[in-house]
This record gives sequence, structure tokens and C-alpha cells, in this order.
Amino acid sequence: MTENHDDTAGMTEAELARHSEKMAKKKQAREKIMATKTDEKGLVIVHTGKGKGKSTAGFGMIFRHIAHKKPCAVVQFIKGAWQTGERDLIEAHFSDLCQFYTLGEGFTWETQDRARDVAMAQTAWEKAKELIRDERNSMVLLDEINIALRYDYIDVNDVVDFLRTEKPYMTHVVLTGRNAKEELIEIADLATEMELLKHPFRSGIKAQQGVEY
Amino acid sequence: MTENHDDTAGMTEAELARHSEKMAKKKQAREKIMATKTDEKGLVIVHTGKGKGKSTAGFGMIFRHIAHKKPCAVVQFIKGAWQTGERDLIEAHFSDLCQFYTLGEGFTWETQDRARDVAMAQTAWEKAKELIRDERNSMVLLDEINIALRYDYIDVNDVVDFLRTEKPYMTHVVLTGRNAKEELIEIADLATEMELLKHPFRSGIKAQQGVEY
Repeated sequence: MTENHDDTAGMTEAELARHSEKMAKKKQAREKIMATKTDEKGLVIVHTGKGKGKSTAGFGMIFRHIAHKKPCAVVQFIKGAWQTGERDLIEAHFSDLCQFYTLGEGFTWETQDRARDVAMAQTAWEKAKELIRDERNSMVLLDEINIALRYDYIDVNDVVDFLRTEKPYMTHVVLTGRNAKEELIEIADLATEMELLKHPFRSGIKAQQGVEY
Repeated sequence: MTENHDDTAGMTEAELARHSEKMAKKKQAREKIMATKTDEKGLVIVHTGKGKGKSTAGFGMIFRHIAHKKPCAVVQFIKGAWQTGERDLIEAHFSDLCQFYTLGEGFTWETQDRARDVAMAQTAWEKAKELIRDERNSMVLLDEINIALRYDYIDVNDVVDFLRTEKPYMTHVVLTGRNAKEELIEIADLATEMELLKHPFRSGIKAQQGVEY
């Protein structure tokens, strides 16, 4: 214990009362705001930026859906050979709730055949559309689709048009990957930029099981 | 299919060759960098910022640990009554791999008793230290600890000292919550700022199951 933890012990009655009052006001303000938030709708959610956590937070929402027993699906556009932990876990325990398709094949720079990359990305996008159209799915995660969009393996206008016109009203679609296109962020309901403050690769630490994959 | 997808079809032999060469160079450069990253060590990981995904990505890493059958633990400092999905899922399926303690009680502004908040945060921090000291745990997630630090319910110097001197070398510790203190970011190996680009609450959409909780 340090001094800080005894703050309240050192507080006068008046200070304690002010603290309680401040907290009560905060609570009131929050409740007032939350009362105006009454709608539910399926969201277009984008995770982008150079920082960590884009895919990880996407999978975190998928696990939340699984926790609430809501059917969901994942299409991995790029990281075929990389992030297998989530897939193994979902396939072993929750395959009744979550469909999982890995259609990309390693990072794009590991394939040197643009025609094959384009074909693979298109196949993944066709599967994504099928899963989103199926109203039983409450959430569909399109993991690393932004990389396929960035290289124009898929046309961003196709994706934007589809999400605008064909996505069922209550379905959440999560799109991850750095360099999200402006057109996509424009139609997103929720967009987060994961910004890199510090990265251990800079000090010679390699990718580790349970952290990066 | 739009024109974009036929890019390669329209490419000349020379263009295709250039594309392949460029990708091969990228791959080489990446492999050269990765070869220098040889160390493994337990990381101090901070997720902060006003955007979404701080806790969600933290839980995503916990699920990765579970997927790799690595023992891990979670201490929730604040969100007692809020994020129960992950806890339910972990307790129902993975309690052998992941210990889960919820010691906070709702957001701080829902309690109006600073002494009780401080006592609760201190209890959570004692539990956190115990879990981190136990070398069987490969990762310990301190969810929303930054909020307790920000209100000085816990002294940041205590946390920094402990992580520096007592954290086992191979243990990962993940600390989440907005307004991470500078002292904490300074000692972090990996720090990410989740920045809000767009938020649906602004357009009257409420917190939804499977997304926010």
C-alpha cells in the first residue's frame, strides 16, 4: 500500500461528499445518454491501422457471439498458414455455432502469382457473401479482407455495394486489416484505428504463440 | 466481377514478371528481418485509447492461449456487471486452462464510495500479483486496470515496480483500459492505441450483445 491508496482515508467528510456527488453526476449523465440509445441494428465494423489487435478483437467478438449462442462465421482472406489457434479452438468446440473458412494462403508477398491471389480472394468474397446473406448468422468476420482490397484483388465498390444493399439489417459484419479503404470507412458504423505505440519486434523479439498467433 | 479483378488478365508478360519480382523481393526482405527476431520473452502488453477493441483483443489473446493449451488467467478490475460473455464461455468450457476473477463492480461511476472502490481495486491487484507470480500461467490479462490506475485506486509505481522486478521472464501480462499512464507505456514491450474513427452510439444505436458485451 502506498499513500495514494489511503487517499480516501485522508479525505475530509466534505471531500468524500464531493467525490460521491461527482460520481453520482457522472452516473446520471451516462444513464441519460444511454437512454437515447435504443436502436439495435447490424453494424459494419472496421478494424484498421498498423497496430496490433485488429484480427484479435475481431475474433474476440466472434467468441462473444459464441458465448451468447449466436450463430456466426469467419472467412480468413489472407492468413491461411498463420493464425490457426482460433480455428482449431472453434472447430474443436463450437463448430455448431461458428462456420470457419480459410481461403487465403499465407501473406500476399508469399505468393508470387497475382492471378492465383485474385482468384483466391474472389472465392473468399463469394463465400463471404453467401454467409452474410444467410440471416441465421448474427455476425460474419471477414478477416484481413482489407489486404485483398488494397491490392485490388477484390473491388472495394463491390464490397460497399453489397454491404449497403444486401446485408440483412440485423447482421454484423466485421472487416479487418491495415490500410482500410476510405470508401469502406465511409459506410462503417464503427471504425477503429489500431495505432502502434511500441512493438517488440523492434527489440529482436520474435512472433510468439498465444500473442501473435 | 469488375475490371479490377481482371487486372492480371490485362497485364503484359513484362508487367506480370514485374509483379512477381516485386512480391519476391518483399518476401525476401521480410524473411531477412524475421531471421533477426529470435528471442522469446514474456511481454508487457498495453491496450489503450478511446476506440473499441482494448478488452476484446485482450480476451482474443486469452482465447489464443487456450487454443494452444497454455494456462492463463484473467482479472477484471472494473466491468463486473458488464462483460459476462467471455467469463461464461471460459467457465463453461476452459476452466481447467483459464482462471477468471471478477473483482471490480460495475463502472467506477456506478459506485459512489471511493473507499470501497479503492479496497476492491487493491484486492484485485493482490490477486493479479498472485496469478502473475505463479509461473504456470503463460499470460495474465488485467482487464480495465488502467481505469483503476487513472483514479489512483492503485498506485502506478506499484504496478511498474512489480512488473519490472517480479514478473517471471516468460509470462505475458496484458493491461487494458483507456488513459494508460505514461509510466506504464514506458515499460511496455507492446503498446497499442485504439483510436476511435466512428462510433454507432453517436447515431442512436445502443450497446449490443456480441459486440460490446
